[in-house]
Amino acid sequence: MSKRAYNFCAGPAALPEAVLQRAQGELLDWHGKGLSVMEMSHRSDEFVSIATKAEQDLRDLLGIPSHYKVLFLQGGASQQFAQIPLNLLPEGGTADYIDTGIWGQKAIEEASRYGNVNVAGTAKPYDYFAIPGQNEWKLSADAAYVHYVANETIGGLEFDWVPQVGDVPLVCDMSSDILSRPIDVSKYGMIYAGAQKNIGPSGILVNIVREDLLGRARSLCPTMLNYKVAADNGSMYNTPPAFAWYLSGLVFEWLKEQGGVAAMGKLNEVKKRTLYDFIDASGLYSNPINVPDRSWMNVPFRLADDRLDKPFLAGADARGLLNLKGHRSVGGMRASIYNAVDIHAINALVAYMAEFEKEHG
Amino acid sequence: MSKRAYNFCAGPAALPEAVLQRAQGELLDWHGKGLSVMEMSHRSDEFVSIATKAEQDLRDLLGIPSHYKVLFLQGGASQQFAQIPLNLLPEGGTADYIDTGIWGQKAIEEASRYGNVNVAGTAKPYDYFAIPGQNEWKLSADAAYVHYVANETIGGLEFDWVPQVGDVPLVCDMSSDILSRPIDVSKYGMIYAGAQKNIGPSGILVNIVREDLLGRARSLCPTMLNYKVAADNGSMYNTPPAFAWYLSGLVFEWLKEQGGVAAMGKLNEVKKRTLYDFIDASGLYSNPINVPDRSWMNVPFRLADDRLDKPFLAGADARGLLNLKGHRSVGGMRASIYNAVDIHAINALVAYMAEFEKEHG
Repeated sequence: MSKRAYNFCAGPAALPEAVLQRAQGELLDWHGKGLSVMEMSHRSDEFVSIATKAEQDLRDLLGIPSHYKVLFLQGGASQQFAQIPLNLLPEGGTADYIDTGIWGQKAIEEASRYGNVNVAGTAKPYDYFAIPGQNEWKLSADAAYVHYVANETIGGLEFDWVPQVGDVPLVCDMSSDILSRPIDVSKYGMIYAGAQKNIGPSGILVNIVREDLLGRARSLCPTMLNYKVAADNGSMYNTPPAFAWYLSGLVFEWLKEQGGVAAMGKLNEVKKRTLYDFIDASGLYSNPINVPDRSWMNVPFRLADDRLDKPFLAGADARGLLNLKGHRSVGGMRASIYNAVDIHAINALVAYMAEFEKEHG
Repeated sequence: MSKRAYNFCAGPAALPEAVLQRAQGELLDWHGKGLSVMEMSHRSDEFVSIATKAEQDLRDLLGIPSHYKVLFLQGGASQQFAQIPLNLLPEGGTADYIDTGIWGQKAIEEASRYGNVNVAGTAKPYDYFAIPGQNEWKLSADAAYVHYVANETIGGLEFDWVPQVGDVPLVCDMSSDILSRPIDVSKYGMIYAGAQKNIGPSGILVNIVREDLLGRARSLCPTMLNYKVAADNGSMYNTPPAFAWYLSGLVFEWLKEQGGVAAMGKLNEVKKRTLYDFIDASGLYSNPINVPDRSWMNVPFRLADDRLDKPFLAGADARGLLNLKGHRSVGGMRASIYNAVDIHAINALVAYMAEFEKEHG
């Protein structure tokens, strides 16, 4: 068996090795029951115990208040982009959206099919290199909710503050930075996150929703997309993505063992500082994002000469530093440094970048 | 590690042990790449090769004609119940549905929210113990499609014939019997199947759809629920449930190694005959379904005295014969004998049933 690589993939992303080892050990026989988690009825005591523990561990990790439901759904954030207005935007109503990059825009585009979308703030004047301050936003007086994307995985910019929206429900796509550091759930109406970055494998999404927002779905909302139906059925209106739920639970358990999100936040702060400091001090690499708005999780960078991209990536691959190519829409490089990517990976990356700069700088 | 049990679960159901072993071996390091399939970008050459091979193997197994698309979707059959009318039923149009049990009824209920549903045939007069012949159906003159459920997992009755509906697209929920024996795909407009019975783990659904049915979605169909969007993007409009896709591909590969669906059909014929013949000859057990309509995959049976249910199940559990309890809505027992449940499992079950009858009959 070959060595595990350092995996900087933006998603589906690296998982903790200890979690994969545990899943591997249990794959044919979970806790001596003679079957895989993949082969269990979702109504069985065994699977219900897995599902319940996963939810409780997530509640513990994020300090989720009891008047929030935790849902485990399918379809990813892209499905939420329709599901949110179908559940929360009354016919003829208005929702405020903040545009900070590609994911914000996708959310806006889909929501616009279901009602009035007011783009209350946009990073466009800053070429998407900075997040517009709330003093620049024009929130509606009567918005059904305010939507923003906490971290733009592709652009590499992240809110380091929480919008103040009074009594209007704040809805946040936290797909790529949930669990990376502590948050105050009570400031939100709803938080959702596709699992495949900081939670588990793809195919499952976590939705943390305040109870008073349930039961507002439009009459033609598909039953499977109705948050209240999911809540009333413990996310088992139909067969859930059981293995992904189980794997997510193992990651939650692992996070608790690491000291929870406060400890992860400290580790992540060191990781991102190490990488950004190196980039800023170098003569070859650059990151364009306004410093306070730089993502903790996705670090895009460019080489001074695009012709060096290919040899840079080839050398990285040869050293087991994988998936550093930037998103096709922006080019350059991107290092995604989620919870499962530890400081050793960052150090190995920085050492390689320094070596490459020496040779090619 | 304990012995693997004989698993008669209706779903998520048993998977081939060889498939689980292969997944286990590759779990931390797929083909020496240093990462798990769960940690790969879905756009990577590696994952695209996995996804493409899975589709091709399914096409080979079922002989899927080239003018059909194969989609890998999320949300299960329950989500299809809305997705089908959203994609195929024009506003104000009519669709014909056949009611042969709980799943057929759920499909009807959801579709009724989106248009006119004509229940063209129903098993109700037969107490859902027999499938109504097509001579009893009242198909609409102008149906957008005809929908039926090939195998009712809970009731345990299955079509052993394909409805004749002329030029009207025939839409079939094949969740619990796909790949159990050969089918003629060209007779259908669309076939869909949740994976967790005869394909792979839960969290993924296969949709085989004739190309001319794409592009008819209603204006308010969520983008993620639009078949054409999925088809145009190779089922990767967003991040797919990659690990479930990979596992399904391993099952397809395994099926080809077993000789394909023709060989599985022969094995399944022996399995179901062994079990039904034993039940019919016994004085303690009974199955209520009209003989030609008996399911090949889900065999519900009752003990002559309900008070024996508990000791029967306890004895089965003690012998590693798991998940024989019938669905809560019908009671009694149910043995689900999908492709991954082999003749040894059937023989062990029959031996136990005989032993139990001797003691308690």
